[in-house]
Amino acid sequence: MELVTGGAGFIGSHLVDSLVAKGKRVRVLDNFSSGREEFLSHHAGSNMVEVIRGDLLDLESVSSAMEGVDTVHHMAANPDIRLGTSVTDTDLRQGTIATYNVLESMRREGVSKISFSSSSAVYGEASQMPTPETYGPIKPISLYGASKLASEALITAWCGTFGAKSWIHRFANIVGPRGTHGVIYDFVHKLKSDPSRLEVLGDGKQEKSYMSAGDCVSAMLHLVDGVDADVNLYNLGTGDTCSVGRIAEIVVEESGLEGVSIEYTGGDRGWAGDVPKTSLDVGFLFSTGFSPGMQSEQAIRHTAQALIDEIGL
Amino acid sequence: MELVTGGAGFIGSHLVDSLVAKGKRVRVLDNFSSGREEFLSHHAGSNMVEVIRGDLLDLESVSSAMEGVDTVHHMAANPDIRLGTSVTDTDLRQGTIATYNVLESMRREGVSKISFSSSSAVYGEASQMPTPETYGPIKPISLYGASKLASEALITAWCGTFGAKSWIHRFANIVGPRGTHGVIYDFVHKLKSDPSRLEVLGDGKQEKSYMSAGDCVSAMLHLVDGVDADVNLYNLGTGDTCSVGRIAEIVVEESGLEGVSIEYTGGDRGWAGDVPKTSLDVGFLFSTGFSPGMQSEQAIRHTAQALIDEIGL
Repeated sequence: MELVTGGAGFIGSHLVDSLVAKGKRVRVLDNFSSGREEFLSHHAGSNMVEVIRGDLLDLESVSSAMEGVDTVHHMAANPDIRLGTSVTDTDLRQGTIATYNVLESMRREGVSKISFSSSSAVYGEASQMPTPETYGPIKPISLYGASKLASEALITAWCGTFGAKSWIHRFANIVGPRGTHGVIYDFVHKLKSDPSRLEVLGDGKQEKSYMSAGDCVSAMLHLVDGVDADVNLYNLGTGDTCSVGRIAEIVVEESGLEGVSIEYTGGDRGWAGDVPKTSLDVGFLFSTGFSPGMQSEQAIRHTAQALIDEIGL
Repeated sequence: MELVTGGAGFIGSHLVDSLVAKGKRVRVLDNFSSGREEFLSHHAGSNMVEVIRGDLLDLESVSSAMEGVDTVHHMAANPDIRLGTSVTDTDLRQGTIATYNVLESMRREGVSKISFSSSSAVYGEASQMPTPETYGPIKPISLYGASKLASEALITAWCGTFGAKSWIHRFANIVGPRGTHGVIYDFVHKLKSDPSRLEVLGDGKQEKSYMSAGDCVSAMLHLVDGVDADVNLYNLGTGDTCSVGRIAEIVVEESGLEGVSIEYTGGDRGWAGDVPKTSLDVGFLFSTGFSPGMQSEQAIRHTAQALIDEIGL
């Protein structure tokens, strides 16, 4: 049995699909704060997916979800980086403390393998780009990034102290169908409410690595199956980047809308804690034999199509 | 006004002494869980040191301690690395969450400078020795080390999001008078209860960097006064190391006891989460013009003398 925390969420639900496709039985633990029942509804009646509605801040419910579990795929987190700026304990609670509860439950129940969705946000504004896993010192600039690094540290400490085994995935920006947040999602919603203009936070020159959710999930499972150190820490991405301005153009193209005015608010970042440029070195990932199906622009276009379908214009 | 959290503790009280010697007024916030009134008793009646008995887990008392503060010297933490193994939320609460409360109180009260006592424990078992600040990825293996890395990440996120300024000091093992824990303290207590033998956890070959508390405090204030980036992150140490076996010999020598049998329990580390060898690259610190007054062995001998005096044999 595989446990997927946040399994009703954006990336989590794609992971559930992949695990089921591999013939694994899956237990989902989700508080449905951003997860949605419809993301898992195609598994109803299959007997492969069990869904528990529970919160990671409740240690007892996390512990009881561990029964019979082989590997924990810990995907649950606050998905909205910007929220950390206004409610400053959001990421501490839903990131760091939630991860502690997952690890402590694993220790109590004798579960020893954890695969964790970390983030390129741990690197903050790195001086080396593309940024390899060996870059240091890393100084996250968002509270979200801080909670991901804190969670990584808890995980490696659990491995070092209690003998757990871990796969830590530092994600590029992950995009795809079922997205519930992020720049493409925001753009589609903005076009829906005003089809004549598209406001872009910042100057449009922010540039980041994007990876499709399908590729992300494939890479995670490729690593969990294929590499075997006590702590396996990898950047997950495509090796290229795309600017926010280009994303705006792609979303407008895919919308089919005519005469949309793309307007920039200015400044080098979208909000406090936003990183203007991220580019992940994915040499270690590629050296394990993985290669992504889509590059950044392709993943963005595919996502724009899917979200326009899901959200409607 | 300077605020020193944990100012009644081992290193904190040395820092208070140095700040007062520089003519600064100091407010101490300490819960006296390991801090002691006698470490500050020599400041009684001087009007330079104000002591507040309060817990960092109480956000309101931390916030009220911020009034009129220029720089926060955040020294409070669980001092006992081994405790994290048995009560697994010790470091999460007294490290990570306490640091969050300090930062959130600073944000609320408009205090923007923080100097933080981090630790070489963040590096875990680094493959590069001496380990520079640029080493990555860092994977702490103790829950204490995890909480220090988590606290660093919160601090850099606060700097990146809310414009705070920080000095992060990754300490070697700090030793000196008023020590309340650690290997020398343990050895003196063991000799006190049985002067015929000294049990050493592990094989005695564990090797770490040691720095005197006086040098540590000098280095911290040297950096706070002398370097001025948004985030200033430095290893603090002497550049050399000493083995646990050698420490045992020095403590026995300083004890004046004859015929003590030094006995090793075996194994390459003292306890789960202990790092067998740490050696800090202190080139960045030295490049700022700082040099320590004592090397590792000298600091250990000085500490052994002081703790034998304090504890008695």
